[in-house]
Amino acid sequence: MIVKTAKGKIDIRALWREKGAVKAIDQRILPGKFKILTIRTHNEMAEAISNMTIRGAPSIGAAAAYGMALAWLNRKDLDSAAKMIKATRPTAHDLFYAVDWMLDRRDEDMAEAADEYSDDIVDMCRRIGENGARLIKDGSKILTHCNAGALATVDFGTALAPMRVAHRAGRDMFVYVDETRPRLQGAKLTAWELLNEGIPHRIIPDNAAGHYMKDSVDLVIVGADRVAKNGDFANKIGTYTKAVLAKENGIPFYVAAPVSTFDKRIKSGKDIVIEERDEDEVLLVDGCRIAPKGSRALNPAFDVTPGRYVKGFVTENGITKPGMLGERGG
Amino acid sequence: MIVKTAKGKIDIRALWREKGAVKAIDQRILPGKFKILTIRTHNEMAEAISNMTIRGAPSIGAAAAYGMALAWLNRKDLDSAAKMIKATRPTAHDLFYAVDWMLDRRDEDMAEAADEYSDDIVDMCRRIGENGARLIKDGSKILTHCNAGALATVDFGTALAPMRVAHRAGRDMFVYVDETRPRLQGAKLTAWELLNEGIPHRIIPDNAAGHYMKDSVDLVIVGADRVAKNGDFANKIGTYTKAVLAKENGIPFYVAAPVSTFDKRIKSGKDIVIEERDEDEVLLVDGCRIAPKGSRALNPAFDVTPGRYVKGFVTENGITKPGMLGERGG
Repeated sequence: MIVKTAKGKIDIRALWREKGAVKAIDQRILPGKFKILTIRTHNEMAEAISNMTIRGAPSIGAAAAYGMALAWLNRKDLDSAAKMIKATRPTAHDLFYAVDWMLDRRDEDMAEAADEYSDDIVDMCRRIGENGARLIKDGSKILTHCNAGALATVDFGTALAPMRVAHRAGRDMFVYVDETRPRLQGAKLTAWELLNEGIPHRIIPDNAAGHYMKDSVDLVIVGADRVAKNGDFANKIGTYTKAVLAKENGIPFYVAAPVSTFDKRIKSGKDIVIEERDEDEVLLVDGCRIAPKGSRALNPAFDVTPGRYVKGFVTENGITKPGMLGERGG
Repeated sequence: MIVKTAKGKIDIRALWREKGAVKAIDQRILPGKFKILTIRTHNEMAEAISNMTIRGAPSIGAAAAYGMALAWLNRKDLDSAAKMIKATRPTAHDLFYAVDWMLDRRDEDMAEAADEYSDDIVDMCRRIGENGARLIKDGSKILTHCNAGALATVDFGTALAPMRVAHRAGRDMFVYVDETRPRLQGAKLTAWELLNEGIPHRIIPDNAAGHYMKDSVDLVIVGADRVAKNGDFANKIGTYTKAVLAKENGIPFYVAAPVSTFDKRIKSGKDIVIEERDEDEVLLVDGCRIAPKGSRALNPAFDVTPGRYVKGFVTENGITKPGMLGERGG
């Protein structure tokens, strides 16, 4: 991810290791404030995942790997650290994948192992970008939901990676950015990344996606938090709605995700646990209460989109149809 | 509309006349503050419609009628007042219908004519409530979008009227209230009305509607700002999305609106002008900027839903299928 500063552009990641600590961009306060936090223990890392300082399935995976590395560096019990980290959020498969991957390396230098895990994600995302870029033609109008960019994936992105590659290759495009209530990751994070990258875009209320999909959008790309064997996948709440609108309007709908997001152990979306978050995320926006006192809210963080809505999964290995996941994608 | 106050319950309208002035609830500051404004000129009324102090198609109609009455009371030129009022907002048919209705009565007491127009709306809404209540069974789970309640229709509501009638008749129900970004009329106004009425409800992010429509919602009722002859209709941005989700999940989708909302002069939704509002309504929430400086937004206030998605129009005359509009509904 390239970040502009007062002195020019700097290249930065969502999180990285510096000796015995992990540095991470605080994603809760972007775009108003840009701050890099220092995380020194696996407890702090678990808290950072839980409170969404670090979010996005692949970044959560890297954070989990680094959390395990911090436990190893601090000579803590690895199994209880693993248990604590796995308990932070239930939906993203990368979290569980990364912790297990690290536990398999308990006899190695786990700090270096976490670096390797994180570097691998970035490398996979770069390949997702290259594989997905051919979906983007000159003049494409693309809709995306939530943030599946560099912040969500250490660097480069999943859904945003093809746009970066196509843009750097000189292709014109325009991106409709769903603001993505309740946490507004589209308006706050995706818009910020596209602005840094110089990609033309407009933020739209989630409600306006259908209006533009009726006659303007020609491609939808989203990320994923967990993909089942049959192609059903969990992603940010509202993704299912966009998939239905895409089908209704004949717009190809693609999911970009690395193999670490594919959960071979579950057959369908029915087995995916949907996290229900605090209702205050809906009832308050940046500290301002929008609803009457006495009214309550529901706040499911994710929804499950059936695989039949997906035209293809863009992975580091290529573009795979939902029915072919067992063979190639996963 | 029954409103709970510190001193108990009061029966109140969205707007009403007191001699030479019009009183109106300031809908911009609900639910945090409850304030009644006094409007003394047609210029002030035009401003109140334009800045959404008064909003919702039938309430806009009543406000327009009262605006003409104020011009008449203040001995202003009626044709230029009509022109000013018609220029406030382009989408709601009631606005144009009401102004023309008043111009036809320029030789009468126009203050009393406006009272009659407003009383007629309330009476129509009561009948919409009675006609629509039979759609609501004991235990129904209903989803609604934006605010089509008493605030939007002087009193009683269009989409909310059947819920009030069924609730007062003792039927159990549960309402999913779309928060309705960008202006949050669902979270701010519909929740406030349901709370006052004692109807169980939860506010949901617009993004969560699809998630609940997959397996929980069994009825969708929305209002309308303008209905074309073929049943295509304009309503708050996001309505089209809900209609598509309802079709996909086999949920009956109803539109509740008085005859004043039906525009017989237009054949289809292609002839409906969609108002584009200030992008700051998206970029700021209650004064807090949510997006990075430099990112812009699109803010269409309405979308058009094709008539084929509508199971029925609930009017004061009964429940009418889209194809039958010429015969009964309009």
